[in-house]
Amino acid sequence: MTYFTEQRSVEAVVERTNLDANPRLAQVMTSLIEHLHAFAKDVALTESEWEYAITFLTSTGQLCSQERQEFILLSDVLGLSMLVDAINHRRPTGATDSTVFGPFHVKGAPIRDMGENITLDGKGESCQFTGRVVDLSGSPIAGACVDVWSDNADGYYDVQQPGIQPQWNNRGRFITGTDGTYAFRGIKPTSYPIPDDGPVGALLSALGRHPYRPAHMHFLITAANHERLVTHTFAAGDEYLGSDAVFGVKHSLVTSYERADQDTVWRCNFDFVLTPDTTDSPPSTPPSPR
Amino acid sequence: MTYFTEQRSVEAVVERTNLDANPRLAQVMTSLIEHLHAFAKDVALTESEWEYAITFLTSTGQLCSQERQEFILLSDVLGLSMLVDAINHRRPTGATDSTVFGPFHVKGAPIRDMGENITLDGKGESCQFTGRVVDLSGSPIAGACVDVWSDNADGYYDVQQPGIQPQWNNRGRFITGTDGTYAFRGIKPTSYPIPDDGPVGALLSALGRHPYRPAHMHFLITAANHERLVTHTFAAGDEYLGSDAVFGVKHSLVTSYERADQDTVWRCNFDFVLTPDTTDSPPSTPPSPR
Repeated sequence: MTYFTEQRSVEAVVERTNLDANPRLAQVMTSLIEHLHAFAKDVALTESEWEYAITFLTSTGQLCSQERQEFILLSDVLGLSMLVDAINHRRPTGATDSTVFGPFHVKGAPIRDMGENITLDGKGESCQFTGRVVDLSGSPIAGACVDVWSDNADGYYDVQQPGIQPQWNNRGRFITGTDGTYAFRGIKPTSYPIPDDGPVGALLSALGRHPYRPAHMHFLITAANHERLVTHTFAAGDEYLGSDAVFGVKHSLVTSYERADQDTVWRCNFDFVLTPDTTDSPPSTPPSPR
Repeated sequence: MTYFTEQRSVEAVVERTNLDANPRLAQVMTSLIEHLHAFAKDVALTESEWEYAITFLTSTGQLCSQERQEFILLSDVLGLSMLVDAINHRRPTGATDSTVFGPFHVKGAPIRDMGENITLDGKGESCQFTGRVVDLSGSPIAGACVDVWSDNADGYYDVQQPGIQPQWNNRGRFITGTDGTYAFRGIKPTSYPIPDDGPVGALLSALGRHPYRPAHMHFLITAANHERLVTHTFAAGDEYLGSDAVFGVKHSLVTSYERADQDTVWRCNFDFVLTPDTTDSPPSTPPSPR
Protein backbone atom coordinates (compact mmCIF):
# COMPACT_ATOMS: atom_id res chain seq x y z
CA MET A 1 0.00 0.00 0.00
CA THR A 2 1.39 3.40 -1.09
CA TYR A 3 0.06 6.65 0.37
CA PHE A 4 -0.20 9.29 -2.32
CA THR A 5 2.83 11.56 -2.84
CA GLU A 6 3.70 13.92 -5.68
CA GLN A 7 6.69 11.76 -6.60
CA ARG A 8 4.85 8.42 -6.58
CA SER A 9 1.44 9.65 -7.68
CA VAL A 10 1.14 7.22 -10.60
CA GLU A 11 2.04 4.14 -8.56
CA ALA A 12 -0.39 5.12 -5.79
CA VAL A 13 -3.29 5.19 -8.25
CA VAL A 14 -2.34 2.34 -10.58
CA GLU A 15 -1.73 -0.21 -7.80
CA ARG A 16 -5.38 0.11 -6.77
CA THR A 17 -6.59 -1.59 -9.95
CA ASN A 18 -7.67 -5.06 -8.98
CA LEU A 19 -5.84 -7.97 -10.56
CA ASP A 20 -9.23 -9.39 -11.57
CA ALA A 21 -10.05 -6.33 -13.72
CA ASN A 22 -10.24 -6.74 -17.49
CA PRO A 23 -6.56 -6.76 -18.64
CA ARG A 24 -7.19 -4.41 -21.56
CA LEU A 25 -9.07 -1.94 -19.34
CA ALA A 26 -6.21 -2.08 -16.83
CA GLN A 27 -3.69 -1.46 -19.61
CA VAL A 28 -5.62 1.52 -21.03
CA MET A 29 -6.26 3.09 -17.62
CA THR A 30 -2.65 2.65 -16.49
CA SER A 31 -1.39 4.48 -19.57
CA LEU A 32 -4.07 7.15 -19.18
CA ILE A 33 -3.08 7.80 -15.56
CA GLU A 34 0.63 7.90 -16.45
CA HIS A 35 0.07 10.48 -19.17
CA LEU A 36 -2.49 12.51 -17.21
CA HIS A 37 -0.14 12.84 -14.24
CA ALA A 38 2.88 13.53 -16.47
CA PHE A 39 0.91 16.32 -18.15
CA ALA A 40 -0.05 17.94 -14.82
CA LYS A 41 3.57 17.73 -13.66
CA ASP A 42 5.07 18.98 -16.94
CA VAL A 43 3.06 22.18 -16.87
CA ALA A 44 2.76 22.44 -13.05
CA LEU A 45 -1.00 22.79 -13.49
CA THR A 46 -2.40 25.45 -11.18
CA GLU A 47 -5.57 25.08 -9.13
CA SER A 48 -7.37 27.76 -11.15
CA GLU A 49 -6.39 26.01 -14.39
CA TRP A 50 -7.72 22.72 -13.00
CA GLU A 51 -10.98 24.46 -12.08
CA TYR A 52 -11.16 25.92 -15.58
CA ALA A 53 -10.67 22.45 -17.07
CA ILE A 54 -13.46 21.00 -14.89
CA THR A 55 -15.81 23.76 -16.05
CA PHE A 56 -14.74 23.32 -19.70
CA LEU A 57 -15.35 19.56 -19.67
CA THR A 58 -18.68 19.98 -17.87
CA SER A 59 -19.89 22.55 -20.44
CA THR A 60 -18.70 20.29 -23.26
CA GLY A 61 -20.77 17.39 -21.91
CA GLN A 62 -23.82 19.51 -21.24
CA LEU A 63 -23.93 20.87 -24.80
CA CYS A 64 -24.20 17.35 -26.23
CA SER A 65 -27.60 16.33 -27.61
CA GLN A 66 -29.09 14.20 -30.36
CA GLU A 67 -28.08 16.92 -32.83
CA ARG A 68 -24.67 17.84 -31.46
CA GLN A 69 -21.66 15.95 -30.12
CA GLU A 70 -19.27 18.49 -28.64
CA PHE A 71 -16.85 15.85 -27.26
CA ILE A 72 -16.34 14.44 -30.77
CA LEU A 73 -15.63 18.00 -31.92
CA LEU A 74 -13.09 18.33 -29.11
CA SER A 75 -11.45 15.06 -30.14
CA ASP A 76 -11.45 16.30 -33.75
CA VAL A 77 -9.77 19.66 -33.11
CA LEU A 78 -7.12 18.04 -30.88
CA GLY A 79 -6.23 15.64 -33.71
CA LEU A 80 -7.27 12.62 -31.64
CA SER A 81 -9.99 11.47 -34.07
CA MET A 82 -7.54 11.44 -36.98
CA LEU A 83 -4.94 9.67 -34.84
CA VAL A 84 -7.35 6.89 -33.86
CA ASP A 85 -8.29 6.54 -37.53
CA ALA A 86 -4.60 6.35 -38.52
CA ILE A 87 -3.74 3.77 -35.84
CA ASN A 88 -6.62 1.51 -36.82
CA HIS A 89 -6.36 1.86 -40.60
CA ARG A 90 -2.74 1.48 -41.60
CA ARG A 91 -3.32 0.81 -45.28
CA PRO A 92 -1.03 -0.93 -47.74
CA THR A 93 0.60 1.03 -50.56
CA GLY A 94 -1.88 1.72 -53.30
CA ALA A 95 -4.97 1.59 -51.09
CA THR A 96 -7.07 4.72 -50.73
CA ASP A 97 -6.39 6.62 -47.51
CA SER A 98 -9.08 6.95 -44.87
CA THR A 99 -10.02 10.08 -42.96
CA VAL A 100 -12.42 11.12 -40.18
CA PHE A 101 -16.01 9.89 -40.29
CA GLY A 102 -17.46 13.15 -38.98
CA PRO A 103 -20.74 13.54 -37.08
CA PHE A 104 -23.06 14.09 -40.07
CA HIS A 105 -23.45 10.62 -41.60
CA VAL A 106 -27.00 9.22 -41.50
CA LYS A 107 -27.69 5.52 -41.91
CA GLY A 108 -30.21 4.37 -44.48
CA ALA A 109 -29.86 7.03 -47.17
CA PRO A 110 -31.92 6.25 -50.31
CA ILE A 111 -30.39 3.77 -52.73
CA ARG A 112 -30.40 5.58 -56.07
CA ASP A 113 -29.80 4.63 -59.68
CA MET A 114 -26.38 5.31 -61.08
CA GLY A 115 -26.10 8.88 -62.35
CA GLU A 116 -29.00 10.21 -60.25
CA ASN A 117 -28.96 13.63 -58.64
CA ILE A 118 -28.63 13.76 -54.82
CA THR A 119 -29.09 17.54 -54.60
CA LEU A 120 -32.75 18.09 -53.73
CA ASP A 121 -32.72 21.79 -52.80
CA GLY A 122 -31.58 23.04 -56.22
CA LYS A 123 -28.79 25.09 -54.65
CA GLY A 124 -25.11 25.13 -55.60
CA GLU A 125 -22.97 24.44 -58.63
CA SER A 126 -23.86 21.07 -60.10
CA CYS A 127 -21.07 18.49 -60.33
CA GLN A 128 -20.83 15.09 -61.96
CA PHE A 129 -18.97 12.62 -59.68
CA THR A 130 -17.54 9.52 -61.33
CA GLY A 131 -14.94 6.83 -60.70
CA ARG A 132 -14.33 3.20 -59.99
CA VAL A 133 -14.18 0.98 -56.91
CA VAL A 134 -11.32 -1.50 -57.31
CA ASP A 135 -9.22 -3.88 -55.25
CA LEU A 136 -5.45 -3.69 -54.68
CA SER A 137 -4.81 -5.48 -58.01
CA GLY A 138 -6.95 -2.93 -59.86
CA SER A 139 -9.84 -5.33 -60.52
CA PRO A 140 -13.33 -3.78 -60.32
CA ILE A 141 -15.44 -4.60 -57.27
CA ALA A 142 -19.06 -5.34 -58.13
CA GLY A 143 -21.83 -4.80 -55.57
CA ALA A 144 -19.89 -2.20 -53.58
CA CYS A 145 -22.12 0.30 -51.76
CA VAL A 146 -20.93 3.88 -52.29
CA ASP A 147 -22.62 5.96 -49.57
CA VAL A 148 -22.06 9.69 -50.16
CA TRP A 149 -22.98 12.88 -48.30
CA SER A 150 -22.02 16.54 -48.35
CA ASP A 151 -23.11 19.92 -47.06
CA ASN A 152 -25.31 22.09 -49.26
CA ALA A 153 -24.32 25.31 -50.99
CA ASP A 154 -24.88 27.24 -47.74
CA GLY A 155 -22.41 25.00 -45.85
CA TYR A 156 -24.96 22.99 -43.82
CA TYR A 157 -25.86 19.30 -43.85
CA ASP A 158 -29.56 18.45 -44.10
CA VAL A 159 -29.60 17.19 -40.50
CA GLN A 160 -28.42 20.61 -39.31
CA GLN A 161 -31.41 22.27 -41.00
CA PRO A 162 -34.44 20.02 -40.54
CA GLY A 163 -37.50 21.71 -42.08
CA ILE A 164 -35.27 24.00 -44.10
CA GLN A 165 -33.49 21.45 -46.30
CA PRO A 166 -35.34 18.44 -47.77
CA GLN A 167 -34.58 15.18 -45.96
CA TRP A 168 -31.71 13.30 -47.64
CA ASN A 169 -30.55 16.43 -49.42
CA ASN A 170 -27.06 15.74 -50.83
CA ARG A 171 -27.10 12.12 -49.65
CA GLY A 172 -27.44 8.82 -51.42
CA ARG A 173 -26.22 5.25 -51.85
CA PHE A 174 -25.11 3.77 -55.15
CA ILE A 175 -24.37 0.09 -55.83
CA THR A 176 -21.63 -0.69 -58.33
CA GLY A 177 -22.13 -3.12 -61.21
CA THR A 178 -19.62 -5.57 -62.63
CA ASP A 179 -17.39 -2.79 -63.99
CA GLY A 180 -17.04 -1.30 -60.47
CA THR A 181 -17.93 2.20 -61.67
CA TYR A 182 -20.06 4.73 -59.81
CA ALA A 183 -21.63 7.98 -61.01
CA PHE A 184 -23.91 10.53 -59.40
CA ARG A 185 -24.73 14.18 -59.65
CA GLY A 186 -24.27 16.44 -56.63
CA ILE A 187 -22.78 19.87 -56.06
CA LYS A 188 -19.22 21.08 -55.78
CA PRO A 189 -19.06 21.18 -51.98
CA THR A 190 -18.27 24.32 -50.05
CA SER A 191 -15.98 24.87 -47.08
CA TYR A 192 -17.84 25.47 -43.79
CA PRO A 193 -17.11 26.08 -40.10
CA ILE A 194 -17.62 23.31 -37.57
CA PRO A 195 -20.12 24.41 -34.88
CA ASP A 196 -18.12 27.06 -33.03
CA ASP A 197 -20.56 28.64 -30.59
CA GLY A 198 -19.61 26.24 -27.73
CA PRO A 199 -16.55 25.43 -25.59
CA VAL A 200 -14.64 23.94 -28.54
CA GLY A 201 -15.18 27.08 -30.61
CA ALA A 202 -13.96 29.16 -27.67
CA LEU A 203 -10.85 26.97 -27.41
CA LEU A 204 -10.10 27.33 -31.13
CA SER A 205 -10.52 31.09 -30.85
CA ALA A 206 -8.19 31.28 -27.84
CA LEU A 207 -5.57 29.30 -29.80
CA GLY A 208 -5.93 31.65 -32.77
CA ARG A 209 -7.34 28.87 -34.95
CA HIS A 210 -10.27 29.21 -37.39
CA PRO A 211 -13.11 26.63 -37.33
CA TYR A 212 -13.27 25.92 -41.09
CA ARG A 213 -13.06 22.65 -42.95
CA PRO A 214 -12.01 22.71 -46.61
CA ALA A 215 -14.72 21.66 -49.09
CA HIS A 216 -15.09 17.87 -49.26
CA MET A 217 -17.41 15.07 -50.36
CA HIS A 218 -17.88 12.20 -47.86
CA PHE A 219 -17.60 8.57 -48.99
CA LEU A 220 -18.35 5.42 -46.98
CA ILE A 221 -17.62 2.43 -49.19
CA THR A 222 -18.50 -1.12 -48.16
CA ALA A 223 -18.07 -4.31 -50.15
CA ALA A 224 -18.07 -8.01 -49.31
CA ASN A 225 -14.67 -9.35 -48.28
CA HIS A 226 -13.17 -5.85 -48.14
CA GLU A 227 -12.43 -3.46 -45.30
CA ARG A 228 -14.91 -0.64 -44.91
CA LEU A 229 -13.45 2.63 -46.23
CA VAL A 230 -14.39 5.95 -44.59
CA THR A 231 -12.92 8.89 -46.46
CA HIS A 232 -13.48 12.24 -48.17
CA THR A 233 -12.29 13.77 -51.39
CA PHE A 234 -11.12 17.37 -51.02
CA ALA A 235 -11.40 20.07 -53.65
CA ALA A 236 -7.98 21.16 -54.88
CA GLY A 237 -7.37 24.88 -54.44
CA ASP A 238 -9.60 25.28 -51.37
CA GLU A 239 -8.20 28.01 -49.12
CA TYR A 240 -8.48 25.79 -45.99
CA LEU A 241 -6.69 22.68 -47.35
CA GLY A 242 -3.62 23.51 -45.26
CA SER A 243 -5.54 24.34 -42.10
CA ASP A 244 -8.52 21.94 -41.82
CA ALA A 245 -9.88 22.50 -38.29
CA VAL A 246 -10.06 18.71 -37.77
CA PHE A 247 -6.83 17.72 -39.64
CA GLY A 248 -8.68 15.45 -42.11
CA VAL A 249 -6.72 16.38 -45.26
CA LYS A 250 -4.26 13.94 -46.84
CA HIS A 251 -2.36 14.66 -50.04
CA SER A 252 -3.79 11.59 -51.76
CA LEU A 253 -7.39 12.72 -51.14
CA VAL A 254 -7.08 16.15 -52.76
CA THR A 255 -8.58 16.01 -56.23
CA SER A 256 -9.32 18.47 -58.99
CA TYR A 257 -12.76 19.66 -59.99
CA GLU A 258 -12.79 20.38 -63.71
CA ARG A 259 -15.14 22.54 -65.70
CA ALA A 260 -17.68 20.40 -67.56
CA ASP A 261 -20.53 21.29 -69.92
CA GLN A 262 -23.03 24.09 -69.24
CA ASP A 263 -25.53 21.73 -67.60
CA THR A 264 -23.36 20.11 -64.93
CA VAL A 265 -20.79 22.94 -64.52
CA TRP A 266 -18.19 20.70 -62.78
CA ARG A 267 -16.94 17.15 -62.93
CA CYS A 268 -14.81 15.21 -60.46
CA ASN A 269 -13.37 11.74 -61.09
CA PHE A 270 -11.86 9.65 -58.27
CA ASP A 271 -11.10 5.93 -57.98
CA PHE A 272 -11.27 4.12 -54.63
CA VAL A 273 -8.94 1.21 -53.88
CA LEU A 274 -10.22 -1.11 -51.13
CA THR A 275 -8.15 -3.52 -49.03
CA PRO A 276 -9.04 -7.12 -48.13
CA ASP A 277 -11.20 -7.66 -45.07
CA THR A 278 -9.13 -7.90 -41.88
CA THR A 279 -11.89 -8.94 -39.50
CA ASP A 280 -9.92 -12.03 -38.51
CA SER A 281 -6.61 -10.20 -38.11
CA PRO A 282 -7.08 -6.80 -36.43
CA PRO A 283 -4.42 -4.23 -37.32
CA SER A 284 -3.63 -3.17 -33.75
CA THR A 285 -1.45 -5.35 -31.57
CA PRO A 286 -3.29 -5.08 -28.21
CA PRO A 287 -6.63 -6.90 -28.23
CA SER A 288 -9.75 -4.89 -27.53
CA PRO A 289 -12.02 -5.96 -24.66
CA ARG A 290 -15.09 -5.27 -26.79
CA MET B 1 2.32 23.36 -43.12
CA THR B 2 2.26 19.68 -42.11
CA TYR B 3 -0.53 17.38 -43.29
CA PHE B 4 -1.56 15.02 -40.51
CA THR B 5 0.23 11.65 -40.32
CA GLU B 6 0.38 9.08 -37.54
CA GLN B 7 4.10 9.71 -37.12
CA ARG B 8 3.89 13.51 -37.00
CA SER B 9 0.46 13.85 -35.40
CA VAL B 10 1.62 16.09 -32.55
CA GLU B 11 3.49 18.54 -34.80
CA ALA B 12 0.51 18.77 -37.17
CA VAL B 13 -1.76 19.89 -34.34
CA VAL B 14 0.62 21.99 -32.26
CA GLU B 15 1.89 24.09 -35.16
CA ARG B 16 -1.63 25.42 -35.69
CA THR B 17 -1.56 27.36 -32.43
CA ASN B 18 -1.18 31.00 -33.37
CA LEU B 19 1.90 32.80 -32.11
CA ASP B 20 -0.38 35.50 -30.71
CA ALA B 21 -2.14 33.02 -28.39
CA ASN B 22 -1.64 33.36 -24.64
CA PRO B 23 1.79 31.79 -23.98
CA ARG B 24 0.61 29.84 -20.93
CA LEU B 25 -2.42 28.47 -22.82
CA ALA B 26 -0.13 27.47 -25.69
CA GLN B 27 2.22 25.73 -23.24
CA VAL B 28 -0.58 23.83 -21.49
CA MET B 29 -2.29 22.78 -24.73
CA THR B 30 0.99 21.68 -26.35
CA SER B 31 1.73 19.40 -23.40
CA LEU B 32 -1.86 18.14 -23.35
CA ILE B 33 -1.73 17.25 -27.06
CA GLU B 34 1.66 15.54 -26.66
CA HIS B 35 0.41 13.36 -23.80
CA LEU B 36 -3.02 12.70 -25.35
CA HIS B 37 -1.45 11.47 -28.60
CA ALA B 38 1.24 9.48 -26.78
CA PHE B 39 -1.50 7.75 -24.75
CA ALA B 40 -3.49 6.80 -27.87
CA LYS B 41 -0.31 5.47 -29.52
CA ASP B 42 0.92 3.62 -26.43
CA VAL B 43 -2.26 1.58 -26.13
CA ALA B 44 -3.16 1.58 -29.87
CA LEU B 45 -6.59 2.89 -28.93
CA THR B 46 -9.30 1.15 -30.97
CA GLU B 47 -12.24 2.92 -32.56
CA SER B 48 -14.73 1.19 -30.25
CA GLU B 49 -12.68 2.27 -27.21
CA TRP B 50 -12.63 5.85 -28.53
CA GLU B 51 -16.43 5.70 -28.95
CA TYR B 52 -16.75 4.35 -25.41
CA ALA B 53 -14.62 7.23 -24.11
CA ILE B 54 -16.77 9.81 -25.95
CA THR B 55 -19.91 8.29 -24.40
CA PHE B 56 -18.29 8.12 -20.95
CA LEU B 57 -17.21 11.78 -21.01
CA THR B 58 -20.60 12.88 -22.34
CA SER B 59 -22.44 11.01 -19.57
CA THR B 60 -20.06 12.45 -17.00
CA GLY B 61 -20.82 16.00 -18.14
CA GLN B 62 -24.55 15.42 -18.34
CA LEU B 63 -24.75 14.13 -14.77
CA CYS B 64 -23.28 17.38 -13.40
CA SER B 65 -25.70 19.71 -11.62
CA GLN B 66 -25.75 22.21 -8.78
CA GLU B 67 -25.72 19.24 -6.38
CA ARG B 68 -23.23 16.99 -8.13
CA GLN B 69 -19.91 17.45 -9.94
CA GLU B 70 -19.06 14.16 -11.64
CA PHE B 71 -15.96 15.55 -13.41
CA ILE B 72 -14.44 16.48 -10.03
CA LEU B 73 -15.18 12.93 -8.87
CA LEU B 74 -13.43 11.63 -11.99
CA SER B 75 -10.42 13.85 -11.29
CA ASP B 76 -10.48 12.62 -7.67
CA VAL B 77 -10.49 8.88 -8.44
CA LEU B 78 -7.73 9.27 -11.04
CA GLY B 79 -5.53 10.96 -8.42
CA LEU B 80 -5.45 14.22 -10.40
CA SER B 81 -7.05 16.33 -7.68
CA MET B 82 -4.47 15.20 -5.12
CA LEU B 83 -1.67 15.76 -7.64
CA VAL B 84 -2.75 19.34 -8.37
CA ASP B 85 -2.95 19.92 -4.60
CA ALA B 86 0.54 18.49 -4.15
CA ILE B 87 2.08 20.54 -6.98
CA ASN B 88 0.60 23.78 -5.67
CA HIS B 89 1.18 23.24 -1.95
CA ARG B 90 4.71 21.98 -1.44
CA ARG B 91 4.98 22.69 2.26
CA PRO B 92 8.10 23.20 4.35
CA THR B 93 9.09 20.62 6.98
CA GLY B 94 6.95 20.97 10.05
CA ALA B 95 3.96 22.51 8.30
CA THR B 96 0.68 20.59 8.29
CA ASP B 97 0.04 18.72 5.05
CA SER B 98 -2.86 19.67 2.81
CA THR B 99 -5.29 17.33 1.13
CA VAL B 100 -8.25 17.54 -1.26
CA PHE B 101 -10.90 20.18 -0.70
CA GLY B 102 -13.78 17.93 -1.72
CA PRO B 103 -17.13 19.05 -3.13
CA PHE B 104 -19.03 19.47 0.15
CA HIS B 105 -17.68 22.70 1.63
CA VAL B 106 -20.25 25.48 1.97
CA LYS B 107 -19.22 29.10 2.39
CA GLY B 108 -20.62 31.13 5.24
CA ALA B 109 -21.08 28.50 7.93
CA PRO B 110 -22.17 29.98 11.31
CA ILE B 111 -19.40 31.47 13.43
CA ARG B 112 -19.73 29.72 16.78
CA ASP B 113 -18.32 30.19 20.26
CA MET B 114 -15.38 28.02 21.20
CA GLY B 115 -16.52 24.64 22.49
CA GLU B 116 -19.96 24.79 20.85
CA ASN B 117 -21.60 21.74 19.33
CA ILE B 118 -21.89 21.61 15.52
CA THR B 119 -23.97 18.42 15.45
CA LEU B 120 -27.58 19.53 15.12
CA ASP B 121 -29.28 16.23 14.28
CA GLY B 122 -28.34 14.47 17.53
CA LYS B 123 -26.95 11.49 15.65
CA GLY B 124 -23.57 9.84 16.07
CA GLU B 125 -20.95 9.42 18.78
CA SER B 126 -20.09 12.79 20.26
CA CYS B 127 -16.47 13.88 20.03
CA GLN B 128 -14.56 16.79 21.53
CA PHE B 129 -12.13 18.30 18.97
CA THR B 130 -9.30 20.41 20.33
CA GLY B 131 -5.91 21.73 19.30
CA ARG B 132 -3.86 24.77 18.40
CA VAL B 133 -3.20 26.83 15.29
CA VAL B 134 0.47 27.82 15.26
CA ASP B 135 3.11 29.13 12.87
CA LEU B 136 6.30 27.36 11.79
CA SER B 137 8.09 28.56 14.93
CA GLY B 138 5.32 27.12 17.13
CA SER B 139 3.89 30.49 18.12
CA PRO B 140 0.10 30.62 18.45
CA ILE B 141 -1.85 32.40 15.69
CA ALA B 142 -4.64 34.59 17.02
CA GLY B 143 -7.69 35.39 14.87
CA ALA B 144 -7.37 32.29 12.71
CA CYS B 145 -10.66 31.07 11.29
CA VAL B 146 -11.09 27.30 11.74
CA ASP B 147 -13.85 26.25 9.31
CA VAL B 148 -14.89 22.62 9.91
CA TRP B 149 -17.34 20.21 8.26
CA SER B 150 -18.07 16.48 8.29
CA ASP B 151 -20.67 13.95 7.21
CA ASN B 152 -23.28 12.88 9.76
CA ALA B 153 -23.55 9.46 11.41
CA ASP B 154 -25.31 8.09 8.31
CA GLY B 155 -22.41 9.10 6.04
CA TYR B 156 -24.08 12.10 4.34
CA TYR B 157 -23.27 15.81 4.40
CA ASP B 158 -26.16 18.18 5.14
CA VAL B 159 -26.14 19.45 1.53
CA GLN B 160 -26.74 15.92 0.29
CA GLN B 161 -29.89 15.65 2.39
CA PRO B 162 -31.69 19.02 2.32
CA GLY B 163 -34.92 18.77 4.30
CA ILE B 164 -33.66 15.66 6.06
CA GLN B 165 -30.68 17.11 7.92
CA PRO B 166 -30.84 20.56 9.54
CA GLN B 167 -28.98 23.23 7.57
CA TRP B 168 -25.39 23.65 8.81
CA ASN B 169 -25.46 20.23 10.49
CA ASN B 170 -21.88 19.30 11.39
CA ARG B 171 -20.49 22.64 10.15
CA GLY B 172 -19.15 25.70 11.87
CA ARG B 173 -16.45 28.36 12.04
CA PHE B 174 -14.37 29.10 15.13
CA ILE B 175 -12.04 32.07 15.60
CA THR B 176 -8.91 31.50 17.69
CA GLY B 177 -7.93 33.79 20.55
CA THR B 178 -4.45 34.87 21.56
CA ASP B 179 -3.47 31.35 22.66
CA GLY B 180 -4.27 29.95 19.18
CA THR B 181 -6.43 27.16 20.56
CA TYR B 182 -9.66 25.87 19.06
CA ALA B 183 -12.31 23.57 20.54
CA PHE B 184 -15.66 22.32 19.33
CA ARG B 185 -17.95 19.37 19.77
CA GLY B 186 -18.94 17.25 16.75
CA ILE B 187 -19.15 13.53 16.09
CA LYS B 188 -16.54 10.90 15.36
CA PRO B 189 -16.95 10.89 11.57
CA THR B 190 -17.87 7.76 9.63
CA SER B 191 -16.47 6.39 6.40
CA TYR B 192 -18.79 6.78 3.40
CA PRO B 193 -18.90 6.04 -0.33
CA ILE B 194 -18.50 8.82 -2.86
CA PRO B 195 -21.55 9.00 -5.17
CA ASP B 196 -21.14 5.81 -7.19
CA ASP B 197 -24.33 5.51 -9.25
CA GLY B 198 -22.84 7.36 -12.25
CA PRO B 199 -20.04 6.83 -14.82
CA VAL B 200 -17.31 7.26 -12.18
CA GLY B 201 -18.86 4.59 -9.98
CA ALA B 202 -19.04 2.28 -12.99
CA LEU B 203 -15.37 2.92 -13.72
CA LEU B 204 -14.37 2.16 -10.13
CA SER B 205 -16.40 -1.03 -10.24
CA ALA B 206 -14.78 -2.13 -13.53
CA LEU B 207 -11.36 -1.51 -11.99
CA GLY B 208 -12.30 -3.58 -8.93
CA ARG B 209 -12.06 -0.53 -6.67
CA HIS B 210 -14.50 0.35 -3.86
CA PRO B 211 -15.93 3.90 -3.60
CA TYR B 212 -15.28 4.49 0.12
CA ARG B 213 -13.45 7.29 1.87
CA PRO B 214 -12.05 6.66 5.35
CA ALA B 215 -13.69 8.68 8.12
CA HIS B 216 -12.35 12.25 8.26
CA MET B 217 -13.04 15.74 9.59
CA HIS B 218 -12.55 18.63 7.12
CA PHE B 219 -10.59 21.74 8.10
CA LEU B 220 -10.18 24.99 6.16
CA ILE B 221 -7.94 27.28 8.17
CA THR B 222 -7.31 30.89 7.19
CA ALA B 223 -5.29 33.51 9.01
CA ALA B 224 -3.81 36.87 8.09
CA ASN B 225 -0.32 36.66 6.57
CA HIS B 226 -0.52 32.88 6.32
CA GLU B 227 -1.27 30.52 3.45
CA ARG B 228 -4.76 29.04 3.47
CA LEU B 229 -4.69 25.43 4.67
CA VAL B 230 -7.18 22.89 3.25
CA THR B 231 -6.90 19.53 4.97
CA HIS B 232 -8.61 16.70 6.83
CA THR B 233 -7.78 14.67 9.90
CA PHE B 234 -8.35 10.95 9.47
CA ALA B 235 -9.41 8.52 12.18
CA ALA B 236 -6.65 6.02 12.96
CA GLY B 237 -7.81 2.43 12.53
CA ASP B 238 -10.36 3.14 9.82
CA GLU B 239 -10.59 0.17 7.46
CA TYR B 240 -10.31 2.38 4.35
CA LEU B 241 -7.19 4.35 5.37
CA GLY B 242 -5.08 2.36 2.91
CA SER B 243 -7.57 2.57 0.04
CA ASP B 244 -9.22 6.00 0.11
CA ALA B 245 -11.14 6.21 -3.20
CA VAL B 246 -9.74 9.73 -3.79
CA PHE B 247 -6.19 9.17 -2.40
CA GLY B 248 -6.55 11.92 0.23
CA VAL B 249 -4.77 10.15 3.12
CA LYS B 250 -1.31 11.23 4.29
CA HIS B 251 0.49 9.64 7.23
CA SER B 252 0.78 12.97 9.03
CA LEU B 253 -2.99 13.52 8.94
CA VAL B 254 -3.96 10.23 10.61
CA THR B 255 -4.78 10.88 14.24
CA SER B 256 -6.14 8.89 17.14
CA TYR B 257 -9.60 9.28 18.63
CA GLU B 258 -9.45 8.51 22.32
CA ARG B 259 -12.22 7.49 24.65
CA ALA B 260 -13.32 10.43 26.78
CA ASP B 261 -15.90 10.81 29.54
CA GLN B 262 -19.43 9.46 29.34
CA ASP B 263 -20.82 12.70 27.97
CA THR B 264 -18.59 13.27 24.95
CA VAL B 265 -17.56 9.64 24.28
CA TRP B 266 -14.52 10.57 22.12
CA ARG B 267 -11.83 13.20 22.02
CA CYS B 268 -9.43 14.14 19.24
CA ASN B 269 -6.56 16.61 19.58
CA PHE B 270 -4.69 17.95 16.53
CA ASP B 271 -2.44 20.99 16.05
CA PHE B 272 -2.28 22.83 12.71
CA VAL B 273 0.96 24.48 11.57
CA LEU B 274 0.46 27.22 8.98
CA THR B 275 3.07 28.58 6.55
CA PRO B 276 3.70 32.23 5.71
CA ASP B 277 1.58 33.76 2.97
CA THR B 278 3.11 33.25 -0.48
CA THR B 279 0.72 35.42 -2.46
CA ASP B 280 3.64 37.43 -3.84
CA SER B 281 5.73 34.35 -4.69
CA PRO B 282 3.62 31.52 -6.13
CA PRO B 283 5.07 28.04 -5.60
CA SER B 284 4.81 26.92 -9.23
CA THR B 285 7.38 28.12 -11.73
CA PRO B 286 5.17 28.70 -14.80
CA PRO B 287 2.97 31.77 -14.38
CA SER B 288 -0.78 31.31 -14.61
CA PRO B 289 -2.70 33.40 -17.16
CA ARG B 290 -5.45 33.98 -14.65
